[in-house]
Amino acid sequence: MTSQTFFPVSQDHCKDFGKISVPKRLLFGPGPSNAHPDVLKALALPPVGHLDPFYVGLMSEVQELLRYAWQTDNRLTLPMSGTGSAAMEATIANSVEPGDKVLVAVKGYFGHRLVDMAGRYKAEVQTIDKKWGEAFTLDEIEAGLIKFRPAILAMVHAETSTGVCQPMKGIGDLCKKYDCLLLLDTVTSLGGVELFIDEWGVDLAYSCSQKGLSCPPGLGPFTISPRAEAKLNSRNGKVPNWYLDVSLLNKYWGSDRVYHHTAPVNMNFAIREALRLLSEEGLENSWNRHLDNAQMLWEGLENLGIELVVDKPLRLPTLTTVLIPNGVDGKAFASHLLNNHAIEIGVGLGDLAGKVWRIGLMGYNSTSKNVDKILNIFETELPKF
Amino acid sequence: MTSQTFFPVSQDHCKDFGKISVPKRLLFGPGPSNAHPDVLKALALPPVGHLDPFYVGLMSEVQELLRYAWQTDNRLTLPMSGTGSAAMEATIANSVEPGDKVLVAVKGYFGHRLVDMAGRYKAEVQTIDKKWGEAFTLDEIEAGLIKFRPAILAMVHAETSTGVCQPMKGIGDLCKKYDCLLLLDTVTSLGGVELFIDEWGVDLAYSCSQKGLSCPPGLGPFTISPRAEAKLNSRNGKVPNWYLDVSLLNKYWGSDRVYHHTAPVNMNFAIREALRLLSEEGLENSWNRHLDNAQMLWEGLENLGIELVVDKPLRLPTLTTVLIPNGVDGKAFASHLLNNHAIEIGVGLGDLAGKVWRIGLMGYNSTSKNVDKILNIFETELPKF
Repeated sequence: MTSQTFFPVSQDHCKDFGKISVPKRLLFGPGPSNAHPDVLKALALPPVGHLDPFYVGLMSEVQELLRYAWQTDNRLTLPMSGTGSAAMEATIANSVEPGDKVLVAVKGYFGHRLVDMAGRYKAEVQTIDKKWGEAFTLDEIEAGLIKFRPAILAMVHAETSTGVCQPMKGIGDLCKKYDCLLLLDTVTSLGGVELFIDEWGVDLAYSCSQKGLSCPPGLGPFTISPRAEAKLNSRNGKVPNWYLDVSLLNKYWGSDRVYHHTAPVNMNFAIREALRLLSEEGLENSWNRHLDNAQMLWEGLENLGIELVVDKPLRLPTLTTVLIPNGVDGKAFASHLLNNHAIEIGVGLGDLAGKVWRIGLMGYNSTSKNVDKILNIFETELPKF
Repeated sequence: MTSQTFFPVSQDHCKDFGKISVPKRLLFGPGPSNAHPDVLKALALPPVGHLDPFYVGLMSEVQELLRYAWQTDNRLTLPMSGTGSAAMEATIANSVEPGDKVLVAVKGYFGHRLVDMAGRYKAEVQTIDKKWGEAFTLDEIEAGLIKFRPAILAMVHAETSTGVCQPMKGIGDLCKKYDCLLLLDTVTSLGGVELFIDEWGVDLAYSCSQKGLSCPPGLGPFTISPRAEAKLNSRNGKVPNWYLDVSLLNKYWGSDRVYHHTAPVNMNFAIREALRLLSEEGLENSWNRHLDNAQMLWEGLENLGIELVVDKPLRLPTLTTVLIPNGVDGKAFASHLLNNHAIEIGVGLGDLAGKVWRIGLMGYNSTSKNVDKILNIFETELPKF
């Protein structure tokens, strides 16, 4: 049998790059974090079909364990088949109708992204703003709700660009009082920082796989409350995003198991195992571990004379922003750690670009041994810069 | 240090599902197909940062090998961070402006999906239609272009729902003649069936990782020609989809390497290795292997008295549609093969639901040994139904 090829095959782009070989890194940046070895093993299991009864059972396990991790009873709790940014867009795409007033509380890079996304879905976007490194008070939130009367308040719980953890007490009640939905970014908090979707009155939330869950990047946990589902069900016209349309996904992740798209089955093997490990450790234990190790890091850095950006009560246990000392080339130091010590730390974004390093201790990486490693490397290497 | 938890942690959804254990399957359905063992090994390598110089180098390798697999020089050739359906939506989201006329040539399930997606992006959608199991002639395509004068002609090269391979000769020339872009679904052809993006004059194409590339599902190869890029660059307003916006992705996948979203790094390790294996085998060898094994399957099935749906010249080497013999419960037979022989075959979709089985021999799975396995199982098991 010969091919019916009617053009010669071009070899222009047929390069011999050799077998893959990946350098080992300690990932202390804003994510991805190192994955748990058992999660990597699960990732490499041979794929099965996305409608295989075994896989359909695994989907239910993932959903149930995600409900535990997020502390929610929401029926529609599932990992979007993309990264955290896809899940972020899913919360906007499904909840925003053209002309809806969306109030975004902006205190960092990811607040700005919410503004951009909501605009693309034709929301009438308003913002309240805080300096990068600060959090909103309840009064500021309430003033915003009174002034703009939005249909949706969107905000970031754990702002990865600044290392601020937004205190959530009372915000859900305000949203109910002023009849708006609460949309929350929990990308850098899920699994690592206390988080109560239902008790906090959160209606839409999204996260990622590669931080507090100790899984590689590639899935975007998503959850939607019955209140937000009601808004979705009463919208005029289709969700203007097919891939992330929860009314379609509901037929696959709900009881019918109707084909929507071919699921990333291996990534779901991995997140299933990551969530199982989290439930085995217990949420409170994981939260306490992250907080304990973060406090060790904070004290250690301050003992070295290094200043932190965020006031202690607002600091995020999963991600610490560190002021680059005067006269130090922050980018060169980060490159030095990566190239000569196989350690990744993050540099600043947006308003904090060039001013800070971002040190993540998330999931599998949040250990006292790793804190020692970071403190030692800062102690020995920083004086050279 | 104790947690500052202000609610008790609910154990309602904290179930003990035990360690993951995945059944081994031979995947002869419409995809996913079994992944190459080396690809699974690459998938499980420890993650690195998405801006790590090593990773940035790997991104370029993936792009270059994708250009080879697709036979294109397109600069913007990259895997979308989602499944094939995300890449499908990316072609629509980036090329369609509200009010654009989009003509979809529908001859199966995935043509209908293109109609749905284009409508969500506010295209004025028209269709030309063929019976499921048939392909379009050049005259039919030209008549459609003359009648509707679309800005974009969207069609499916390898229709996974019917097993038809659309002859492409001359279609690109017609699109140039009538000044429209050609958008092509190559989900079930990339790597397994002859495919010449540039020679065929294709402007936008998408595919998946889990079929001809022998990789698990989770990435959606995407390519866009300079002609389609020009349309994107001259559009009014932002692409109404943040995650799939190629003008943003261009800053990360282009030369600047500006952060857009955290890439699914492990899936990219895997597709890099899958594409390397394809380039090592050689495209023509892979295409010939798929055709040879498909022909063995077709002859063997016909020798067993089983009828195929598609006329021989239009048959897709990667996916064969088989008429379920009169009186046989097709779903029960497929379940029997899965549950008792660990073999997955697909059932029918849409117009062919209940009427056909779909047998895939793709990528790593396209071997004469596997053809023998399928023929043996049909010979011994089908008479029991």
